[in-house]
Amino acid sequence: MLIGQVVGTVVSTVKDEKMVGLKFQVVRDVSERGKPTGKYVVAIDAVGAGHGDMVLYATGSSARQTPATDGKPADAVIMAIIDSWDVDGELVWDRQAPAVKA
Amino acid sequence: MLIGQVVGTVVSTVKDEKMVGLKFQVVRDVSERGKPTGKYVVAIDAVGAGHGDMVLYATGSSARQTPATDGKPADAVIMAIIDSWDVDGELVWDRQAPAVKA
Amino acid sequence: MLIGQVVGTVVSTVKDEKMVGLKFQVVRDVSERGKPTGKYVVAIDAVGAGHGDMVLYATGSSARQTPATDGKPADAVIMAIIDSWDVDGELVWDRQAPAVKA
Amino acid sequence: MLIGQVVGTVVSTVKDEKMVGLKFQVVRDVSERGKPTGKYVVAIDAVGAGHGDMVLYATGSSARQTPATDGKPADAVIMAIIDSWDVDGELVWDRQAPAVKA
Amino acid sequence: MLIGQVVGTVVSTVKDEKMVGLKFQVVRDVSERGKPTGKYVVAIDAVGAGHGDMVLYATGSSARQTPATDGKPADAVIMAIIDSWDVDGELVWDRQAPAVKA
Repeated sequence: MLIGQVVGTVVSTVKDEKMVGLKFQVVRDVSERGKPTGKYVVAIDAVGAGHGDMVLYATGSSARQTPATDGKPADAVIMAIIDSWDVDGELVWDRQAPAVKA
Repeated sequence: MLIGQVVGTVVSTVKDEKMVGLKFQVVRDVSERGKPTGKYVVAIDAVGAGHGDMVLYATGSSARQTPATDGKPADAVIMAIIDSWDVDGELVWDRQAPAVKA
Repeated sequence: MLIGQVVGTVVSTVKDEKMVGLKFQVVRDVSERGKPTGKYVVAIDAVGAGHGDMVLYATGSSARQTPATDGKPADAVIMAIIDSWDVDGELVWDRQAPAVKA
Repeated sequence: MLIGQVVGTVVSTVKDEKMVGLKFQVVRDVSERGKPTGKYVVAIDAVGAGHGDMVLYATGSSARQTPATDGKPADAVIMAIIDSWDVDGELVWDRQAPAVKA
Repeated sequence: MLIGQVVGTVVSTVKDEKMVGLKFQVVRDVSERGKPTGKYVVAIDAVGAGHGDMVLYATGSSARQTPATDGKPADAVIMAIIDSWDVDGELVWDRQAPAVKA
């Protein structure tokens, strides 16, 4: 999985019928230090993430292993909202403590 | 999924027999801000997208989860036409309002 | 799928037994404008492509969805020979008109 | 598979229910010489790796071929802890001999 | 598939039980001209390749389509040892003629 931040939404009326009712989230990919990498992905949200949340997203066939995406043409899914993460013993992100946010 | 713009078509007479009758669209990959990234993909169109449309495309095995691509040697599919999308609270693309188009 | 040009062949005697009888083609990856990207792939040819042909190739599990590659350790397949393609309304490649070839 | 070093942990309370009880490890991707490449992945740990361990991780559908990840929305798994590896006849990493560690 | 050269070995005692008895080879990725690209992969050897051999390796789910890797958490497999390959009509590599080796 990779870490990203929910920064937007894609609206689509004309789409594969299996995608009706699903929310397309724009997820900005970040580095292990929480900095934007310049990449992004549009993912189906399987856990109720909101704008600004740091999330874990899975891609490929693994993205279809949730009730929301099973058997659907979705290659990216948000499967966890991150509370916090650390790297090299330092806290990179804490959802409850904005001061140390990336 | 990633966002791209339909910019062309590939014509092929000699192809895997399962691909007969399918349309190959050239989709120019764009950034979260709607700018070309220099990459592209040739995708099967499962939703009737037209030239200039911004679309969502799925890749890998997920590209085979539509009636048009099931069981076929296709690794990219257009599975949604985008009406609009926003990033960081700003509208990036609006299909009905050319003025704010990327 | 991506577009590439058949530029060579790989010969192998010692290989997985399922690969016996298959031809390994060196396919030079090209941009949407038909220029080499510096990347390549070795693909199984499912359609009888020849040296110099511009082709479409599929990768990943989708590469196994042809009679030639079903159930085999092949992650890239040539599944179409390109007659022509256009981008932004301009003809990029025409198999019958060398003058406009990339 | 690729080689990486376990450098952190991601904590998540709200996640796909199949992921409950699994540990998310931050794995820093390294080169064949053991140097960081600037990339990382968040992987499920199937072998009990600890902080600082050099490990092998598998991605994509192959990441679901362990008891810990079967049928789950996980696209990366740590499936081996590395004792040592060599390249061009030189020892790059030896878990028991810190002096030659990367 | 991509072309690479076997340049090393990874030793692991603690690993997923399905991987017991398999050999992890460090494969240095090369360009179509046989030059190192700076990338590598650790692959399961399904054909008995030796140090210095140029090989074809497959990745993703296709890497599990050999008797050695079926159902296992392996995302890369050596499925052919290369005798020779040519590009643009020139011999790039010949296993029996070191003088023209890359």
